[in-house]
Amino acid sequence: MSQQKTDIRSDMAWSTADRITVRGRDLPSQILGKLNLGDVAFLELTGRLPSAAESAVFNAIAVTLVEHGITPSALATRMTILGAPEAMQAAVAAGLCGLGSVFVGSTQGAAKILLAALPTRDAPGDLDRIAGEIVADHRARKITIPGIGHPIHKPIDPRTPRLFEIAEEHGFKGRYVELMTLIATHAEKASGKSLPVNATGALAALCCELGLTPQMCQGIAVFARAIGLVGHIVEETSRPIAAEVWHRIDAEATRHVRPET
Amino acid sequence: MSQQKTDIRSDMAWSTADRITVRGRDLPSQILGKLNLGDVAFLELTGRLPSAAESAVFNAIAVTLVEHGITPSALATRMTILGAPEAMQAAVAAGLCGLGSVFVGSTQGAAKILLAALPTRDAPGDLDRIAGEIVADHRARKITIPGIGHPIHKPIDPRTPRLFEIAEEHGFKGRYVELMTLIATHAEKASGKSLPVNATGALAALCCELGLTPQMCQGIAVFARAIGLVGHIVEETSRPIAAEVWHRIDAEATRHVRPET
Amino acid sequence: MSQQKTDIRSDMAWSTADRITVRGRDLPSQILGKLNLGDVAFLELTGRLPSAAESAVFNAIAVTLVEHGITPSALATRMTILGAPEAMQAAVAAGLCGLGSVFVGSTQGAAKILLAALPTRDAPGDLDRIAGEIVADHRARKITIPGIGHPIHKPIDPRTPRLFEIAEEHGFKGRYVELMTLIATHAEKASGKSLPVNATGALAALCCELGLTPQMCQGIAVFARAIGLVGHIVEETSRPIAAEVWHRIDAEATRHVRPET
Amino acid sequence: MSQQKTDIRSDMAWSTADRITVRGRDLPSQILGKLNLGDVAFLELTGRLPSAAESAVFNAIAVTLVEHGITPSALATRMTILGAPEAMQAAVAAGLCGLGSVFVGSTQGAAKILLAALPTRDAPGDLDRIAGEIVADHRARKITIPGIGHPIHKPIDPRTPRLFEIAEEHGFKGRYVELMTLIATHAEKASGKSLPVNATGALAALCCELGLTPQMCQGIAVFARAIGLVGHIVEETSRPIAAEVWHRIDAEATRHVRPET
Repeated sequence: MSQQKTDIRSDMAWSTADRITVRGRDLPSQILGKLNLGDVAFLELTGRLPSAAESAVFNAIAVTLVEHGITPSALATRMTILGAPEAMQAAVAAGLCGLGSVFVGSTQGAAKILLAALPTRDAPGDLDRIAGEIVADHRARKITIPGIGHPIHKPIDPRTPRLFEIAEEHGFKGRYVELMTLIATHAEKASGKSLPVNATGALAALCCELGLTPQMCQGIAVFARAIGLVGHIVEETSRPIAAEVWHRIDAEATRHVRPET
Repeated sequence: MSQQKTDIRSDMAWSTADRITVRGRDLPSQILGKLNLGDVAFLELTGRLPSAAESAVFNAIAVTLVEHGITPSALATRMTILGAPEAMQAAVAAGLCGLGSVFVGSTQGAAKILLAALPTRDAPGDLDRIAGEIVADHRARKITIPGIGHPIHKPIDPRTPRLFEIAEEHGFKGRYVELMTLIATHAEKASGKSLPVNATGALAALCCELGLTPQMCQGIAVFARAIGLVGHIVEETSRPIAAEVWHRIDAEATRHVRPET
Repeated sequence: MSQQKTDIRSDMAWSTADRITVRGRDLPSQILGKLNLGDVAFLELTGRLPSAAESAVFNAIAVTLVEHGITPSALATRMTILGAPEAMQAAVAAGLCGLGSVFVGSTQGAAKILLAALPTRDAPGDLDRIAGEIVADHRARKITIPGIGHPIHKPIDPRTPRLFEIAEEHGFKGRYVELMTLIATHAEKASGKSLPVNATGALAALCCELGLTPQMCQGIAVFARAIGLVGHIVEETSRPIAAEVWHRIDAEATRHVRPET
Repeated sequence: MSQQKTDIRSDMAWSTADRITVRGRDLPSQILGKLNLGDVAFLELTGRLPSAAESAVFNAIAVTLVEHGITPSALATRMTILGAPEAMQAAVAAGLCGLGSVFVGSTQGAAKILLAALPTRDAPGDLDRIAGEIVADHRARKITIPGIGHPIHKPIDPRTPRLFEIAEEHGFKGRYVELMTLIATHAEKASGKSLPVNATGALAALCCELGLTPQMCQGIAVFARAIGLVGHIVEETSRPIAAEVWHRIDAEATRHVRPET
């Protein structure tokens, strides 16, 4: 164990008897009533206030990730509230635990690819050539490119054009959006399949346009989904499904071993 | 196990090849770029869009709960990301797990008291008398009244006047705010101590003004804090403290039993 | 915030370059190969080694709680591993989050009732009268008595006689077991229904016989179930059901709102 | 969404009115009082009962992983119980969430290396040559070999010789133990540093000897630590440290920004 003390410091928030400061701003006078929840999330991640344009794009990113219906996460949350209705926070936590590599990780993965190719918004490079190389490289390694194709939303993911439209409206449809789009084009050409930019890829591109890191992409997905999971808890309370799901699945899963039906 | 199937239904969201609908609204055309994150949270909880006034008050409520600095939850999240940096969602989940009765539960508790006394915004009743009875009842049972008093923020919690100001500005400073304020007045008179409405009490009153349930109060606290915990993960990544905290506490906690220092 | 430092101390474990001590015992020479997992759990909870008799009863208690098949917790774990296969620990955590008041809490609840009536194993008192009062009190307050009755296991819960038999074999069928049994007898008489001691009640009685606290009852349930949830993850890996459950429930839950099937 | 139903089946447990079966065995008559907690864990993972020798080795593996003192996980659990004392299960869950790649993952990592080299216990191959290749490969890729070296336990990890002794006693000191030992020898020779097999490497080797998968290695670590975390909750209840840790760290972390001390 290290005996040499290193500094422990946090700039997230501090308070005294008459003041509460969040990210360097006075909470009552500079934040409350001035910033919406998405803007405060931007402040939390970056330490600065978003411009109006950044606010619009960032809120759209986060909003896209709130609610996806009956997902595995929503089911985990509903199963948890059934057993521990007194601990709603644990039910949200249970649902968040599954936001890993399979579902949410692809946004982060797509952002990593974009940032590896273009470390900054104005990094030089022939985007068409770069996209071709990314596709060729993934095909050679037989791995899927995150951010393109969708099992349900065909031929296009309806969120993508809208997200790109919002980005354009606010001056954030830049080289990351272009690169993501070119990756899809090259992947479609190479595979012969319909592989349009999906919501994950669009969100990754917009996060890069805003200068956010892949870790922040993941973080936005996590907190946005926390909102959705609270929504599911509210619905589960008024119109429960968890007990019925449990009973049905238990009955079916064990019917082969029970002596009687 | 129930053999009779009951209906399994959810109205949170659904999607088809070309459409994604959240809470009955078309996500691309009616939500993205139109609603901020707080408004979508309101939609998730209530199933309807907030008015501009509701949006202002609701966003202020949620924003208040995002970031409280180095809390036990923030420490739990930072300890978790230290061991599992590949699973950010689990680190947020770990931090949420502690948002129980001690810290966050008091908002819900205060809301329950307000709603028990005034089931609806325009329920009749002499608020001064009701407040007196609530205080007398809690004192007789020797239990703390949630929503008043604060160990640090004295003589007033600086968030409370600002939250009530925002409520007033938007037409939501009604009978719940009045009742909460009267409870504090009676409690101060009865105890002789400074027991002003704290942020928890103010938030509870505003939630009641908006027609939200105690469960929703708790839910807002949970998802708002998820945003803050992601912020802590971002800071921990660039300026880590978890390992130092761990090493120091471990060394101190076991120094009495180690044969050597 | 307190500026006066209080002592930070833990006696759970410590290590130096050549020694590792758990609960005051040398791990390599005094624990490894000498104690089974249940015995170490007893050591963790109580700070002392179990006698052979205590070991037998304690292991039986814990073993009873490991595996209950397709429970809501098992489903939450399986939903979580589907999304985050790289974070097994988070999947177990998700499943544990639901072990609250509804399912597991009843053991703790029954133990609290027993300990309130009999603070120690040899506390005096007419058990038949005490049991009658407990039943009358719960009936007057219209609340369920934890530890008796079972929706499936009728007329008896097959675990109960076996647990009491193990207790008897090892000298732990004492006044708590007797009181629990008398509570069931009185409840059956008062209600006219079959309300035998269920596994929960039997476990609570045995925990009290061993001198464990209600908190420890809850703790045993939590760690025992962690074992079972790992078992479910292993089965889910070789014979997955989570994706199928998800797809079916999603399809059914949203069929009323989709324009097409 | 798949419309074609696939089979939902689980063989973990099932129950009828008068029977409870876990992993194909009658819980009351074949498990309770017959198997200790470690044996039931083995049954859960493998679907079969351990031999006496397997039971001894498996229990030793699990016991090693129960308690490591004030770890980041223990701190996360203690921070969580401070805020939500009513939800112990959530506090254990919070602690488990951090058992990821940094601490616990190395057992799994070491097991993967051993199994890649020796798919079965009696797979042929010159172990000394294989070990040399593993070390050379990791050095060429500049990555750490999991399972060897320890920051505190020098020159040897005291758990390793004891674990290998237990394995030998029960006929499980086979080619995986030999290979792990040879990897350490080669690594020490190549690096010039002291890099003995640590507990992680020893546990991985024993898991492979028992025919367990890397996933099961991880699973054992998770459920064993759940026991330890319950122990920390019990200690936190009688001798709390969480609040003091929180207050100290908060005060230090924000002292640079506060206008007053």
